[in-house]
Amino acid sequence: MLKPLNENQEAFHTIRLLEDRDALEIIDQTLLPGETRYIVLENIEDIWEAIYQLRVRGAPAIGIAAAYGVYLASRWSHASTYFQLYDVFMKNKEYLASSRPTAVNLFWALNRMEDCLKRHQETTVEKALLELKLEATKIQLEDEEVCRSIGEHALTLLKPGWGILTHCNAGALATSRFGTALSPLYLGQQQGYDFNVYADETRPLLQGARLTTWELQQAGVNVTLICDNMASIVMQEGKVQAVITGCDRVAANGDAANKIGTSGVAILAKHYNIPFYICAPLSTIDFDCPTGGDIEIEQRPSEEVVSKWYEKPMAPENIKVYNPAFDVTDQSLITAIITEKGVLKSPYSEALKEVKKQIGK
Amino acid sequence: MLKPLNENQEAFHTIRLLEDRDALEIIDQTLLPGETRYIVLENIEDIWEAIYQLRVRGAPAIGIAAAYGVYLASRWSHASTYFQLYDVFMKNKEYLASSRPTAVNLFWALNRMEDCLKRHQETTVEKALLELKLEATKIQLEDEEVCRSIGEHALTLLKPGWGILTHCNAGALATSRFGTALSPLYLGQQQGYDFNVYADETRPLLQGARLTTWELQQAGVNVTLICDNMASIVMQEGKVQAVITGCDRVAANGDAANKIGTSGVAILAKHYNIPFYICAPLSTIDFDCPTGGDIEIEQRPSEEVVSKWYEKPMAPENIKVYNPAFDVTDQSLITAIITEKGVLKSPYSEALKEVKKQIGK
Repeated sequence: MLKPLNENQEAFHTIRLLEDRDALEIIDQTLLPGETRYIVLENIEDIWEAIYQLRVRGAPAIGIAAAYGVYLASRWSHASTYFQLYDVFMKNKEYLASSRPTAVNLFWALNRMEDCLKRHQETTVEKALLELKLEATKIQLEDEEVCRSIGEHALTLLKPGWGILTHCNAGALATSRFGTALSPLYLGQQQGYDFNVYADETRPLLQGARLTTWELQQAGVNVTLICDNMASIVMQEGKVQAVITGCDRVAANGDAANKIGTSGVAILAKHYNIPFYICAPLSTIDFDCPTGGDIEIEQRPSEEVVSKWYEKPMAPENIKVYNPAFDVTDQSLITAIITEKGVLKSPYSEALKEVKKQIGK
Repeated sequence: MLKPLNENQEAFHTIRLLEDRDALEIIDQTLLPGETRYIVLENIEDIWEAIYQLRVRGAPAIGIAAAYGVYLASRWSHASTYFQLYDVFMKNKEYLASSRPTAVNLFWALNRMEDCLKRHQETTVEKALLELKLEATKIQLEDEEVCRSIGEHALTLLKPGWGILTHCNAGALATSRFGTALSPLYLGQQQGYDFNVYADETRPLLQGARLTTWELQQAGVNVTLICDNMASIVMQEGKVQAVITGCDRVAANGDAANKIGTSGVAILAKHYNIPFYICAPLSTIDFDCPTGGDIEIEQRPSEEVVSKWYEKPMAPENIKVYNPAFDVTDQSLITAIITEKGVLKSPYSEALKEVKKQIGK
């Protein structure tokens, strides 16, 4: 097991399998920071809803929740033969895959679970279920290692005292632990780097305001909240020396889909000559997707923009709203892609091909 | 009098002097779009508060409210001599000038009122008050002409069917009528231009979501609301052919201060090769201010970011917040500055010097 980064880091957990209850416990991220409430998910519809409604969110965390989800759904099915089990598994796999179409490691985790199940078709149902549980647990534990490794690589690119801007939440709440983009900030905090972090609030769902500031504040990191449209002025005023974000999917050419607004931040960083880093676990790299143009962008309901969180609707009734959940950052805007295997630099097509070879894909 | 642009355009008025009550009536913009409520301001503290709290807002509208404000404060004083009147006037002028430090035509309007008062020191108090009232009314009526003229010049730069992105609210609500950046959209609507307008919601105070969409929707303009961080994706997707915004102050070199986030939108527009236009009444040009670096940026309370409008606080307690109300767009990012005297192009230092000569400053 990894050591906790500090006492406070262990003050919450994002996802936990409740073995005695055959259920999944998550921290309900839609209630943070006002309320720290854990909810127990006991059927597949609740797991789908938790992913769709962003109660659990962040590419790695979604993958972990989905992995436990298909395991639990298989157990809940009381299938008596392997073929029954496989049928139920595939139905639930497809169902969970529909919850967030942009997050590639949702599919990655589900495919990995399917591969596991296929490897054990000669065994009993009970043994196959045990293997599924172990595989999901492995996905979670590996994610912790991946996050720490990304943090260590990323930290080599940052200097003490720097101002760091981040968008959305790619922290412990978005992963099993440590986060991706926030991992170097936690490691830096331990090592006295004394970063000044600027967190974009990240409309419409305010993951920056609600989650990133909450996480970092608990760990004692110096963090300042800004509205998304203030990224330009903090860069202009020299307050930011690097931008670091997570990502939901990287195409084979290095284009990266991440939370809506990320591409704008990357363009600003380029304008102000500030390095722009993407933290990408290898599970977010989609070698089958040639460019960002091939990534499906999830569209979400207008209520998120005009009425969610607000005391009253903040726009006229029936106003037309465009609410894409992600955008694609062109690879030419990315200074480096940081994976658990190291720091990738442009040309990304070449660098990613090399990675593909290394991991035997 | 100008003809209304259409029936709905007259559905509201931003500022109106109530002559029979010696009071100022404004539409309370903080309550829009949920409630259309007019409030009557009967003392100088209420006028200061209305400007500070953005019940009345937008550079030209602030100037008009301040002009009526110093007139009314002078009347309310019951001064019996010119010198008493002048004393009271100057005290209230200074007081109102402190309400929004970035809006140069607040000072412009107040100075113009002072000049008017000085021109009439040989007259009776009653006559001086009458002249002040006429001057404030003139500022308001001239603003209507300025806005229409800006609209006509701006429309020459736009083509039918274009997607137009705007930030904040530089519409009828921000002026005496028609608006600056929205003026060409109203004129275009009359002439069948069929624009697709994208309105940035404009955090933290949501002037785009609450005011711009409300105004345009009433006039039948096709408008879509987006979060500020979606400006990049709508440009990337080819939905936007021009960006047009208002401004609060233009420096002598063409740098322009406007609502926070404007500089970011300008940088995105440049990246995507989309023209970026600023609409600037001559009253917003500060010939005494050499560059944008010399413009004082108003800092506003953190509550606007973390708790205003929201059902509950949307960030951890005591989180540090940076909340500048404006930013400065570098002149190199501005495709043209549109004034009531025509369209200015780079080099702006030269173009603005020429304007200064023309208007005899």
